[in-house]
Amino acid sequence: MRIPQVVIENLLTTWPLARLATTNVDGSPHQVPIVFAWHSGCFWSPIDGKPKHNRQPLRVVNALANPAASILIDSYEEDWSRLWWIRAQIEISVVEPTKASTNVQKITAEVVEKLKAKYPQYGSTEVLREPATMLSMSPTAWTSWCASESSLQRG
Amino acid sequence: MRIPQVVIENLLTTWPLARLATTNVDGSPHQVPIVFAWHSGCFWSPIDGKPKHNRQPLRVVNALANPAASILIDSYEEDWSRLWWIRAQIEISVVEPTKASTNVQKITAEVVEKLKAKYPQYGSTEVLREPATMLSMSPTAWTSWCASESSLQRG
Repeated sequence: MRIPQVVIENLLTTWPLARLATTNVDGSPHQVPIVFAWHSGCFWSPIDGKPKHNRQPLRVVNALANPAASILIDSYEEDWSRLWWIRAQIEISVVEPTKASTNVQKITAEVVEKLKAKYPQYGSTEVLREPATMLSMSPTAWTSWCASESSLQRG
Repeated sequence: MRIPQVVIENLLTTWPLARLATTNVDGSPHQVPIVFAWHSGCFWSPIDGKPKHNRQPLRVVNALANPAASILIDSYEEDWSRLWWIRAQIEISVVEPTKASTNVQKITAEVVEKLKAKYPQYGSTEVLREPATMLSMSPTAWTSWCASESSLQRG
C-alpha cells in the first residue's frame, strides 16, 4: 500500500532520521544516516558539530560530483503489519550560507531555527560547523510503502 | 570513532534491520529497508512474503545489472552520544535456491533456518515467496562510526 500524501507530509516534519544515498566516484552507492528539517518542499541537512571522520564528508564530495541521490525514511517494529517506508529520489544542492545570496541566507537561517526546534540536542552541538555547509535536497519522485492500513496508527 | 570488529560481528547477528542501496539503470541510487541474516561472512536477505509493489523488486533488477551496492545499519537515539552506524560496501549475488548447486542449496537452507530463528514473524509470513529468490551480499569494505565510547553500551 502507498502512504497518503498528507501522512507523508506530517512524517517529514517530525521523523528524526533519514538515510541519504549518494554515488561514489567509482559508481557504487554511499549511504549515511542524516538528521534533517523539511522546509519549503525540500529536505535540508546540516554538516553539523557531531564528530566526523573527515573534514569534508563524502556525502558532500559525492553531491558536488553527482547531485542525483536518494533519501529513505522507515520504521521497524516487531509487528510487521506496522512497517512502513518513504523514499524520495532527490537532487542535492550544496549550500554554503555565508557565500549565498541574501534570499538563500534567509532560508538557511529559517532552516537552522527549524533544526534547533526539532532537535533539542543542538543546544549543545553546533548546527553548522566551519566551513558552514548545508545540503538542500529537492525531491524529484516519491515512493512509499506500508504493510497495512494500521501501519501508521500510533499506540 | 570506529566500532571494534567484535562488536560489529555481534550487532550483525542480532540487529533486525538494514538499508540496502543499489544503483538504478539511470545511475541514481535506490534504497530499501531489508531484514537479513548474517551467515558465512555474508548478509543474506530473502524476497519474502511481506507485501511488495512489484513481482520482481527493483533491488533484484538492479543487483542483476550492477552487483556493487551498499548496506547501512544504524541506531538513532535522542542521546546523540549514543549514535552509531555500520556501513559495508558489498557485492550482491542473486541466488535462486531451487536452481542452485547442492552446496548453495545447503547454505540457503541454513540461512532460512537462521532467518526463522531471528524473526519469529516468519511463523506467519513466507521466508521465500515464489519464485524463491535470495540476495547474498558479500562485504568488500567496512566503515563504522560511533559518537562516543558509550554509544554501544545498553542500558
